[in-house]
Amino acid sequence: MRPPALTIPLAAALAAASATAQAPASPAPPPAPSEIVGKASAADWIAIAPSDLMVMELAPASGGKARRVVIQLMPAPVAGPHVGNVRALAKAHWWDGTSINRVQDNYVVQWGDATEKKALPEGLAAVPEAAYEMPIPADYAALLAQVSTRGFVPPSPPRLPPDYGDPYADFAGFLGGFPIAGQLGSGSPGSLWPVHCYAMVGVGRDMSPNTGTGAELYTVIGHAPRHLDRNIALVGRVIEGIEHLTSLPRGTGALGFYEKPAERVTIRSVRLASEMPPAADLKFQQLSTDSDSFEAYAIARANRRDPFFIKPAGGADICNVPVPVRRAP
Amino acid sequence: MRPPALTIPLAAALAAASATAQAPASPAPPPAPSEIVGKASAADWIAIAPSDLMVMELAPASGGKARRVVIQLMPAPVAGPHVGNVRALAKAHWWDGTSINRVQDNYVVQWGDATEKKALPEGLAAVPEAAYEMPIPADYAALLAQVSTRGFVPPSPPRLPPDYGDPYADFAGFLGGFPIAGQLGSGSPGSLWPVHCYAMVGVGRDMSPNTGTGAELYTVIGHAPRHLDRNIALVGRVIEGIEHLTSLPRGTGALGFYEKPAERVTIRSVRLASEMPPAADLKFQQLSTDSDSFEAYAIARANRRDPFFIKPAGGADICNVPVPVRRAP
Repeated sequence: MRPPALTIPLAAALAAASATAQAPASPAPPPAPSEIVGKASAADWIAIAPSDLMVMELAPASGGKARRVVIQLMPAPVAGPHVGNVRALAKAHWWDGTSINRVQDNYVVQWGDATEKKALPEGLAAVPEAAYEMPIPADYAALLAQVSTRGFVPPSPPRLPPDYGDPYADFAGFLGGFPIAGQLGSGSPGSLWPVHCYAMVGVGRDMSPNTGTGAELYTVIGHAPRHLDRNIALVGRVIEGIEHLTSLPRGTGALGFYEKPAERVTIRSVRLASEMPPAADLKFQQLSTDSDSFEAYAIARANRRDPFFIKPAGGADICNVPVPVRRAP
Repeated sequence: MRPPALTIPLAAALAAASATAQAPASPAPPPAPSEIVGKASAADWIAIAPSDLMVMELAPASGGKARRVVIQLMPAPVAGPHVGNVRALAKAHWWDGTSINRVQDNYVVQWGDATEKKALPEGLAAVPEAAYEMPIPADYAALLAQVSTRGFVPPSPPRLPPDYGDPYADFAGFLGGFPIAGQLGSGSPGSLWPVHCYAMVGVGRDMSPNTGTGAELYTVIGHAPRHLDRNIALVGRVIEGIEHLTSLPRGTGALGFYEKPAERVTIRSVRLASEMPPAADLKFQQLSTDSDSFEAYAIARANRRDPFFIKPAGGADICNVPVPVRRAP
């Protein structure tokens, strides 16, 4: 028995290649989503601006191993005003010396000032609840008009999609490299909003109408809590090092908060990559969600036909189509 | 500022109660899903049979803290033939001394015999791929006929549901306390299958037509990998102690396998609760998915109207409606 695995192990891939060699008339098996991404042309990859990268250095793990978490802030047009606050807090080095305070299984890891007494930098925007949604941009509305509602918005030009129906919204899709959902307007452009997929980063808040300042952040570490969409602001996503957060001990207090200060993990620093020296080696790229490669990838995610699979699903939910991100080659 | 939280903190609940006291004419705020579950009558809770509980004791954590994981095996009619194999392996104490071998972030934790040389007990069933699906039982088909397709199957009697549309199947719902999805037949009863939600436990396998023996198991620790539905067998779900698996260090090898034997966590024992002494204190209950309480809970999950929320979604996906399980009071 080969090593059991849920996706194609190397041994199996080699065996499949060998079988093909013995029967040269057989067509190559359909590619896995990862293979489609691997073959995407250099032009399909977009550099992520260093000013959109935020680097959180945690205190080293026991044994001295560094723990770095890289967050991609949402760019225009998806970014709301909270992203500006987050940039300002990073530039003020505000999170230095704060901590990871909450780890709730299948929900979130949350960080910020556990004392809740640290003064905030001046000039942060007070963000209204209306900022949880944005009007659908005209060019996106034109795309939407070409596809059926209650479905996924594929990249331009739209083709007949598999089923990407979304029970939380009229449509779901991608904009500027981020997963979004939205509702169609009647006589108005309608609205859209970023969605709570795994690894997305959002702004903790108190009871409504409070929308938070941006100083308390969380990331999703479980099944997409889509009920939070339009109820809490999202500002970005973790693109590297999320395992340093997801593997932390779960908090035993209410909502997964750590009960003892000693359980908290210290945040040594949070910096924008644009303010770090080039030696920090922080060059990342994302697969353009407007590329044909991304469309082929999204279709393959919805219809796995690579050799391990026997029944393609015929559909996928928006959070099961994670946007590929890589280190620049 | 009160402690930031994504769901109602105690302080906020008290403040809300206080506000109600000051304005007695105001109606009580709509209950949160957890409040609906908390008020369910004793009759709505179903005892989980000890023969359906499997207890995995890991080697203690550093510091000596015990690590117990409790798995609920799927009962009829959802259970497939792999569940019998898993029971046989537990009765044979087959997993004793094996290990956790793989932790892949946002995917699975997998365990079994890392050497792949341990002899299996005799009498395990060879399970065909056809067993990934089952015919829709007649009484469930009658329920389905009362609601629209491509939606959620609420408990009997069905009422107009929120949107629980499922891009992976014709319908999604619950049967025997487990989340399922299915496709409608034309002239036949159609088929249904259990689905890969967070914490579900499945059977690792090699390439098709291999379906695995049941000796290699995994649990889902990230966003629901629904593309695995009908491609791998599910046998149950973790109902307690999943944090002992989800907080393990991620494996650095391919597919998240641990590269060094020392990284593996030893499994001390796996036992059916029915073979453990009463002192093991393993009395669990699940909220009946046929109860009115569950229906109210499912509707509240899809339409959060408790005070923290400002926009109810109007829908939910099947894996965002986790079946409540508790220790027997």
